[in-house]
Amino acid sequence: MHNLALVLRHVVRTQPAPSRADIAAATGLTRATVSDLVQTLVASRLVDELAAHATARAGRPAVPLAPAGRTLFAVGAEVNVDYMGVVVMDLAGEVLAEQVIDADYRASDPAEVLHALDDLCGRVVAKTVPRAGRLAGVCLALPGLVDDEEGMLRRAPNLGWREIQVRELFAHHRRLRPAPVRLMNEANAAALAEAGALAATDPHPSFLYVSADIGVGSAIVVGGQMMAGGRGWSGELGHTVLDPAGPVCNCGSRGCLEQYAGKDALLRACGIDVGEPLHALVAALRRGDQGCARAVGRAGEMLGVAIANAVNLVDVHLLILGGIYLPLSEWLVPGIQAALDHRVLSAPWAPCRVQAAASGPRPALVGAADAVFDRVLTDPSPWCLPAD
Amino acid sequence: MHNLALVLRHVVRTQPAPSRADIAAATGLTRATVSDLVQTLVASRLVDELAAHATARAGRPAVPLAPAGRTLFAVGAEVNVDYMGVVVMDLAGEVLAEQVIDADYRASDPAEVLHALDDLCGRVVAKTVPRAGRLAGVCLALPGLVDDEEGMLRRAPNLGWREIQVRELFAHHRRLRPAPVRLMNEANAAALAEAGALAATDPHPSFLYVSADIGVGSAIVVGGQMMAGGRGWSGELGHTVLDPAGPVCNCGSRGCLEQYAGKDALLRACGIDVGEPLHALVAALRRGDQGCARAVGRAGEMLGVAIANAVNLVDVHLLILGGIYLPLSEWLVPGIQAALDHRVLSAPWAPCRVQAAASGPRPALVGAADAVFDRVLTDPSPWCLPAD
Repeated sequence: MHNLALVLRHVVRTQPAPSRADIAAATGLTRATVSDLVQTLVASRLVDELAAHATARAGRPAVPLAPAGRTLFAVGAEVNVDYMGVVVMDLAGEVLAEQVIDADYRASDPAEVLHALDDLCGRVVAKTVPRAGRLAGVCLALPGLVDDEEGMLRRAPNLGWREIQVRELFAHHRRLRPAPVRLMNEANAAALAEAGALAATDPHPSFLYVSADIGVGSAIVVGGQMMAGGRGWSGELGHTVLDPAGPVCNCGSRGCLEQYAGKDALLRACGIDVGEPLHALVAALRRGDQGCARAVGRAGEMLGVAIANAVNLVDVHLLILGGIYLPLSEWLVPGIQAALDHRVLSAPWAPCRVQAAASGPRPALVGAADAVFDRVLTDPSPWCLPAD
Repeated sequence: MHNLALVLRHVVRTQPAPSRADIAAATGLTRATVSDLVQTLVASRLVDELAAHATARAGRPAVPLAPAGRTLFAVGAEVNVDYMGVVVMDLAGEVLAEQVIDADYRASDPAEVLHALDDLCGRVVAKTVPRAGRLAGVCLALPGLVDDEEGMLRRAPNLGWREIQVRELFAHHRRLRPAPVRLMNEANAAALAEAGALAATDPHPSFLYVSADIGVGSAIVVGGQMMAGGRGWSGELGHTVLDPAGPVCNCGSRGCLEQYAGKDALLRACGIDVGEPLHALVAALRRGDQGCARAVGRAGEMLGVAIANAVNLVDVHLLILGGIYLPLSEWLVPGIQAALDHRVLSAPWAPCRVQAAASGPRPALVGAADAVFDRVLTDPSPWCLPAD
């Protein structure tokens, strides 16, 4: 089982497509063992043999191996404060369908919302996944403290949800029913997608992913590993206290980062109605509105202080901005960078870099589907035919 | 090599002393393999056979195995703002010598101080380690950003040291010379000692160790693993910003925790001369001085806010106080606990516990020696006789 996973991971994560000999060289397994394992993976329709290309050496041409497309599928789903969505992805990493519904889910009815998402996921799967296709699992990303073991969302302050039996309320559609359902924090899911996007240049990246909507979330990745913490509840950067006597936060505390650099706080600081879309703010900034630029600049400084605290605590020096920080980054980054340069103890020896997320507009959807396949890559045996 | 390490670790970390059969059962290795490996470890004087005790079953009595005492030695050393010290420990975990010199090393001459420590370590080793004893290594704990790879201390704000070639300046004494010298952050070293002290009740503890003198340091342990970060520079809790416009800190930033809950800040807040020993403050508190109690209580609240930020970020719910926080804990803990209960998002599902360190008055010394033996337990082969 361990060696099967080793070979499958190598095929999925290696570019250009490796041959059996490449896999043997990279893993230290014998050619005979690799051939047997590849045969199992090909027979199980997890790996495809591509067209052979001639090698410089004599003998049979090497056959490049690639993850099979359209045979094993993962569903990534998400409910957030202003949208819900679903993607269907295959093991080759192709997104076969993505559907997003924009709506305001603050103070929504969890049963109603999860039922609607269930229905959406089921319909998208019915349209995308052939009857003969296998569903590896469903992963649902949520903006809060998720207890995957119990299948519960403990608390999502910005949805106003608390103690929700998510696994009982979700994934009853007949096309989803046989698949295992997993819950995940949305910032962790987005960071998985980001690690995937970075993998081409650095297979073991270390970074802090910081993303915002109404709330501010983050995820810590060190050497390619998610630092999820004791219970998977790490990364609550939005509740870093920047002023113990500051404004009251949705979480019940005071002076949390969210109150300075969350979406509502940003709009309010710019004199824009909290109900307005973010685009109103971006348009004002693009028009050269000095008041808005100053307010967003100040928010950038506060965000920078919170990120500096995190860098001093966990020692990662690449900061990746996502969510509403993407369209605002031009106005936020100077304040963030100044705070990091000034306040990170190790900055003279390891300068902090701030960059925009590369993983697309709804990274948690893709990351949730990645999480499903991460389980397959850890143990592919449930998806393999028994060896002859 | 891997199996040798597996067996040695089991012998060192298991109570009561395991037999060959116990090791085979716990590791999944065959009895024959375990017997061979134990023979190598016994011949190499890393493992001792204790007196056999009869078993209930028929056959030869089981021989309990224990780490050998007084054959392989580690030196843990430390320079901090108000003392330097050394311990010599053996593989059985016995501290054979400990020597501490109390002095003020702020703004000291690094070459002079490291030379004095070198001399101290050499003399203690000469007195403690028999000529035939083997020195596994020296680990030096320092209160700052340590670059072990380069053998340098990058920055220790409270010593006033910067870019110090520690490995060039230290461990030239003829009794230390053949041993490898490693550098480590002192809070990380202390947390290793604390993990050792907790291991009896929890072999894979998760906790944040928070310790102070002039500065405030911390270390994050999740599931028994030190979260050292990308470069080993994690845990700089002392430079968590609690007020971006607060008092200037030694690090150049403003409003750092250290300025509210470091030793000088505590003494100053209590109206006690900064030159005075901590005992002056403890005595005032014991006398019932209300002003001091209020000032220390406020420092506890600020410390609690910084710790709450860390708990929200890294998701560990056991907080262990060391250093000057030990004698002050009675007056600090209520404020810390209140901040944690109020500000940690996950507190309702995972209550935060604050407790005093159990690892003795100079934990970084013991932890530094532990770090030397951790390397031996990862790969004992340099200390083993070649197999016949």
